[in-house]
Amino acid sequence: MSLLDLFLEAGNLKRLPRTGWLLRGVSNPESIADHSYRVALITLFLADELKAKGFEIDVERALKIALLHDLAEARVTDIPLTAQYYLDKGKAEKKAAMELFIKTSNPREYFRLWREYEEGLSLEGRLVKFADKLEMLIQAYEYERTGFSNLDEFWGALEKLRESEFYEHFRDLVEGLVALRKQNR
Amino acid sequence: MSLLDLFLEAGNLKRLPRTGWLLRGVSNPESIADHSYRVALITLFLADELKAKGFEIDVERALKIALLHDLAEARVTDIPLTAQYYLDKGKAEKKAAMELFIKTSNPREYFRLWREYEEGLSLEGRLVKFADKLEMLIQAYEYERTGFSNLDEFWGALEKLRESEFYEHFRDLVEGLVALRKQNR
Amino acid sequence: MSLLDLFLEAGNLKRLPRTGWLLRGVSNPESIADHSYRVALITLFLADELKAKGFEIDVERALKIALLHDLAEARVTDIPLTAQYYLDKGKAEKKAAMELFIKTSNPREYFRLWREYEEGLSLEGRLVKFADKLEMLIQAYEYERTGFSNLDEFWGALEKLRESEFYEHFRDLVEGLVALRKQNR
Amino acid sequence: MSLLDLFLEAGNLKRLPRTGWLLRGVSNPESIADHSYRVALITLFLADELKAKGFEIDVERALKIALLHDLAEARVTDIPLTAQYYLDKGKAEKKAAMELFIKTSNPREYFRLWREYEEGLSLEGRLVKFADKLEMLIQAYEYERTGFSNLDEFWGALEKLRESEFYEHFRDLVEGLVALRKQNR
Amino acid sequence: MSLLDLFLEAGNLKRLPRTGWLLRGVSNPESIADHSYRVALITLFLADELKAKGFEIDVERALKIALLHDLAEARVTDIPLTAQYYLDKGKAEKKAAMELFIKTSNPREYFRLWREYEEGLSLEGRLVKFADKLEMLIQAYEYERTGFSNLDEFWGALEKLRESEFYEHFRDLVEGLVALRKQNR
Amino acid sequence: MSLLDLFLEAGNLKRLPRTGWLLRGVSNPESIADHSYRVALITLFLADELKAKGFEIDVERALKIALLHDLAEARVTDIPLTAQYYLDKGKAEKKAAMELFIKTSNPREYFRLWREYEEGLSLEGRLVKFADKLEMLIQAYEYERTGFSNLDEFWGALEKLRESEFYEHFRDLVEGLVALRKQNR
Repeated sequence: MSLLDLFLEAGNLKRLPRTGWLLRGVSNPESIADHSYRVALITLFLADELKAKGFEIDVERALKIALLHDLAEARVTDIPLTAQYYLDKGKAEKKAAMELFIKTSNPREYFRLWREYEEGLSLEGRLVKFADKLEMLIQAYEYERTGFSNLDEFWGALEKLRESEFYEHFRDLVEGLVALRKQNR
Repeated sequence: MSLLDLFLEAGNLKRLPRTGWLLRGVSNPESIADHSYRVALITLFLADELKAKGFEIDVERALKIALLHDLAEARVTDIPLTAQYYLDKGKAEKKAAMELFIKTSNPREYFRLWREYEEGLSLEGRLVKFADKLEMLIQAYEYERTGFSNLDEFWGALEKLRESEFYEHFRDLVEGLVALRKQNR
Repeated sequence: MSLLDLFLEAGNLKRLPRTGWLLRGVSNPESIADHSYRVALITLFLADELKAKGFEIDVERALKIALLHDLAEARVTDIPLTAQYYLDKGKAEKKAAMELFIKTSNPREYFRLWREYEEGLSLEGRLVKFADKLEMLIQAYEYERTGFSNLDEFWGALEKLRESEFYEHFRDLVEGLVALRKQNR
Repeated sequence: MSLLDLFLEAGNLKRLPRTGWLLRGVSNPESIADHSYRVALITLFLADELKAKGFEIDVERALKIALLHDLAEARVTDIPLTAQYYLDKGKAEKKAAMELFIKTSNPREYFRLWREYEEGLSLEGRLVKFADKLEMLIQAYEYERTGFSNLDEFWGALEKLRESEFYEHFRDLVEGLVALRKQNR
Repeated sequence: MSLLDLFLEAGNLKRLPRTGWLLRGVSNPESIADHSYRVALITLFLADELKAKGFEIDVERALKIALLHDLAEARVTDIPLTAQYYLDKGKAEKKAAMELFIKTSNPREYFRLWREYEEGLSLEGRLVKFADKLEMLIQAYEYERTGFSNLDEFWGALEKLRESEFYEHFRDLVEGLVALRKQNR
Repeated sequence: MSLLDLFLEAGNLKRLPRTGWLLRGVSNPESIADHSYRVALITLFLADELKAKGFEIDVERALKIALLHDLAEARVTDIPLTAQYYLDKGKAEKKAAMELFIKTSNPREYFRLWREYEEGLSLEGRLVKFADKLEMLIQAYEYERTGFSNLDEFWGALEKLRESEFYEHFRDLVEGLVALRKQNR
């Protein structure tokens, strides 16, 4: 039963740590699934807000992209930046995604969704990318609040958020986080 | 900024263990977010399959329910069965859910979704319940495969899956898991 | 054999984390049993000191209360403040305590002890409450000394200690801790 | 303030693992405090039972011994059997206990209690030794039930329990545990 | 100071888990440094034995190779088999090794050693490969002895050991391990 | 097969935490093997540098000493300073080392190496001692950088490094670390 295989492989996302935190000394960091969960949750609320503001956005599509965007890491693992310099992570995840989706009844469609995220092909794909970065910064803030330091490098992603087409709509969210961080220091 | 508050509270789901496993000695078990992630992923594929078979199912709705169904545990935590005998978990989560959704721009709608799961009010809500149980059994199988024992009690949920309206459509999935478990013993 | 059952259930206290720390990001916090142990140890020395000062205090009684005061959490778990707003923790623990003590040969007596703590009915019960709060603050200090932050909220308990009937006798202890904390900052 | 020092040192018992389990591969085992807590709890119920049967037993004394018996490990740590062959653990703990109790207002009395356990000088001291071994076997059973193996060596302590003066009074407890273990295999 | 940089990067090997175990559910597995340590230790004794038997083997060289052979993983991480299908791990580690060794005063020499392992260019390089596989199997046996299952796949490496030029000299070692494993089952 | 026994015992070094960190609240600290690995790696580069500068140093000898210097802790465990006041750690490790090396074909030689470290009998032994202290300080710095505090006591070892015969050759390394630490504060 191939969907069962897929669900079992997805279990790896619970077992695999997010290596960026690990390398900076967070000894028992979030899993990839932990991260993906909150990315999807953020996507849900941001997509609904955009829709309420009159955007033509397909919320179902956005949610599916959020849930699938890290699935290839069940095979490829969370390759950190220090490794990406030596490895073509994008290419690897692309191939792994393709082969994972073959276990479903509609591989072409799911792979299309995956590419929308990876290549920023659709509004929905780009929104998930925004949610992905935002989630990481919220987590960085949470670790800093707990007492972890040495995480400055992650905050480079802030620039990406501020340059995004979605920034004007979620400025309060982004800058609210920045303000919380300042308070904490 | 109230959505930011909500996202920060959702971070608790990464930090909180699923207590059922903990009480049986799994020393570093999955988080609530880990579980919720795979529930949503399963929901995605099952909902799409049902739709392909001609069901009138709102996939967006199903995905939202999956992502929201455990959110109240960010405040209430994962109350295990041993405690539910003494505490009205359902009532507590209901109130907590309501108060969490107030932070959003559409509390009524999100609370409605939450109730669809909790009370089985819609096809989508019941499908997430099916996915929730299936996810737990897949995890139980994975722990057993790793060498953990003492998890028989969880398999009582199998009966619930077999009695479900969705069973006939996902018989291969459920019985495939049961077969894997047998092989493993 | 019912005492054996009771001892096995008490094993849950080793497996269950103190959720207050967990929610603030302490990733591998003390267990309930860890906490209960030091509460009982503190009670021992404080009760002996009070007795030496001429108090009529039943040290045996105080020690029993200290060892039993969190036993109900073996079933109910450590419900954090965020959840207590939605759940009647006191009532749940009361019922669970009663049912646990039925496994002993003198349920009435042990339940009486439990209530002395919970309701502050005796000098001994109130002393354990004092020790319970003091223990929590010592732990908070230890986590802060290790580098954890975000624990200010716990120090609200200081006021409770200062208002206690025992404060005048253990002022050095309480204020000594406060002084250590200041040094650390 | 010397009692505060003592309480802070006792915090080490929460942080230090019981090395016997660690060496056999239990990766996140109970702390010394976890163990001490249940030893004291067991002592409470056994002492009360003996008293009810007409034994002249000082329950307060027994409880104090239980709480103090491993305190020296806050400095000496839990030296495993593999090391005891090379180190005089008894002598080290004796000296450490003496120096720890100097921080209290009655060092002589507490050291006397400590020796009653270590040297089996009193009924109370020997009861805590019985409780200490029983607690270890309950924990061994719990780990085995969870799926850990390689713990047979610990069950050698069963002989000690069976030879003890207390065995006839707690035969059901000891043999009940043995029966549970058999069922589990 | 470039050697300091190198030593700091090597710290990653302590923080990074060996992913093979992780993916099979060992929740807190050995680090890469843990593994490398025992590989070097095994190399030491095997190399000395070979020398005693008259082999012309450069023990210093063998030890250096053992200590350097996984250093590139400080950047590339421990890419598991599931990922190697999509990624050119060998190429990545080669480039990373080169860039790491530039921090030393003799990059060419250290890279030469690294290649001797990777490409089996010397007796010493091949001995470390033998030690590397043997170490993994000893660890697999240790996890199995602890109660972990689902590790059969690792034992495929046994064939590699048996086909090795060193097998005849260390047959007792290899088959002794196999015998222990059988006993354990 | 006695070498196999030795390798299995060495596995304890992976499972045993370095207790110095543990006692200061680092909840999941490096293993003894983690530490030993980097000591050996540091030794490799320092020995090569000294040789390049014209020192008569036996690099093979230095590497063997580095790999063997903590092996006795596989039986004795990492006895912390608080315990060394009560226990003769040196004597215990000496006896344990002797008995461990009996499992090899050349016990006398390996024990000789072990003593060169312990008693500073040779240039190589003293270099490993230098590497051992340096490694500890690098780790202390890494923990501090991560956010852990309360580690000042470890930096007393700095004086030992500065007084060492090797200091003039590795001043940049030692002072570079001190400078990084200052930057971090």
